[in-house]
Amino acid sequence: MSVTTEIIAIGNELLIGDVQDTNTHWLCQRITGLGGIVLRATLIRDDPQVIGEVLLQAIQRGTRVIFTTGGLGPTADDLTLSAMAAALGRPLEEHPEALRMVQETYVRLAQAGYVAHAELTPERRKMAILPAGAQPLYNPVGAAPGVLLREGGTTIITLPGVPAELQGIFEQSLTPILRELYGQGYYAERVLVVDCGDESSLAPAVDAVQRAHPEVYVKSRAKAYGPGVRLKITLSARGDARDEVEGRLSRALKELQRRLEALHIPIVQIS
Amino acid sequence: MSVTTEIIAIGNELLIGDVQDTNTHWLCQRITGLGGIVLRATLIRDDPQVIGEVLLQAIQRGTRVIFTTGGLGPTADDLTLSAMAAALGRPLEEHPEALRMVQETYVRLAQAGYVAHAELTPERRKMAILPAGAQPLYNPVGAAPGVLLREGGTTIITLPGVPAELQGIFEQSLTPILRELYGQGYYAERVLVVDCGDESSLAPAVDAVQRAHPEVYVKSRAKAYGPGVRLKITLSARGDARDEVEGRLSRALKELQRRLEALHIPIVQIS
Repeated sequence: MSVTTEIIAIGNELLIGDVQDTNTHWLCQRITGLGGIVLRATLIRDDPQVIGEVLLQAIQRGTRVIFTTGGLGPTADDLTLSAMAAALGRPLEEHPEALRMVQETYVRLAQAGYVAHAELTPERRKMAILPAGAQPLYNPVGAAPGVLLREGGTTIITLPGVPAELQGIFEQSLTPILRELYGQGYYAERVLVVDCGDESSLAPAVDAVQRAHPEVYVKSRAKAYGPGVRLKITLSARGDARDEVEGRLSRALKELQRRLEALHIPIVQIS
Repeated sequence: MSVTTEIIAIGNELLIGDVQDTNTHWLCQRITGLGGIVLRATLIRDDPQVIGEVLLQAIQRGTRVIFTTGGLGPTADDLTLSAMAAALGRPLEEHPEALRMVQETYVRLAQAGYVAHAELTPERRKMAILPAGAQPLYNPVGAAPGVLLREGGTTIITLPGVPAELQGIFEQSLTPILRELYGQGYYAERVLVVDCGDESSLAPAVDAVQRAHPEVYVKSRAKAYGPGVRLKITLSARGDARDEVEGRLSRALKELQRRLEALHIPIVQIS
């Protein structure tokens, strides 16, 4: 069974249309690659009520891993952690290890001349105030540590919204934790490119293969119509073991090839 | 009062990480520009149960306008309209005007040699089967019409996932409807660039202006630390009338300038 995962992206700038949220896409690729399954992603505003509500609903759905992005910085509208603490009924407390991380970052930044001084102002201290029971995750790029929190059977991983910081924490501080969380899940896909620009002609083949192989996900994708336009058909599967997943994919692929041939649709490429 | 809006983006490919969802960002920009406010966007899989549930929750929150993207094509996994019909307790029926739109598109495509024939196969007919009471929206780019549906005080606008088709319907078929829906809403923003790479130094000014001007949204954004890194501070406001919104922004901007000056943080640019 794949580990169910949700992403909650927080920040008014995403919904004003000021910033394109690229973090969700990046996380989806990584989580899928680890064998997990992302069921839902929600983009919300910097509203503590809504942050708490969306988080609790994801927990209530039995989601195994929840990633949040955004709202960890030094300003008052960075309120992910306080909203989370309120929703989970946990006090906020200054975390000594998180404070040490923040302090070390500002010492480094001040030495390099990037900030004027290394003093722990209230705004900088704010980034070390975590919900009780949280574990800080070292941020190799910026000042705000990531945060890991376990609530019942759910693991909540709270990451900054700046993509370089999110990716830095994910790759440098989370790898062993994620391996343990996602375990031995295996995901694979095959992509066929066909010399046919009309999705409605492919539909009978795609639908028949999907019905015959419910454990494989079959999707064709149209881009536009026209001469030279080719369609992509993606077969994907996940499971506990590599052999099982690859076997399923091979069987579905063979049937799809047979059916496309019967429709006189040439396959240009398989990868 | 700004017209509350939500976006529901549908498609496994978005959550597998195969495709970056750019439609949500594009819609957020347009809706904000029309004076609307996007409160939430949800990315979900091609799961009829989940599609129905997310749609009903948005309606129950009293959302005035809901956009959905994706799942309108000819294949069986394009199930947005059937999921919507089930959730709203409406039968699905072939819509004569939608069928005419689909037919005309395939005649045009066949004449241009882009598809082999113009015949209305079951897969093509599927795109004209809409929930009862729906209104089709002409698609100038592809075959699947968009769909408009009113449910109580909520207007649901269902668009294809292919960006060119979504944008084509939005700009060619929706403009008068959106003007009416979003009415006279007005949105404006000012962006300051400051010569300071340390968000924690700015935080006292940003937080004080936010507290003194709750009707203006103030956000600073850090990209990374380092010499030559500059921060952007965005002030934005919305309201019924242009003068009122511009007045609020000017007052908040003046106070922010004063406070940055007091902190010896140079303003490089105001736009």
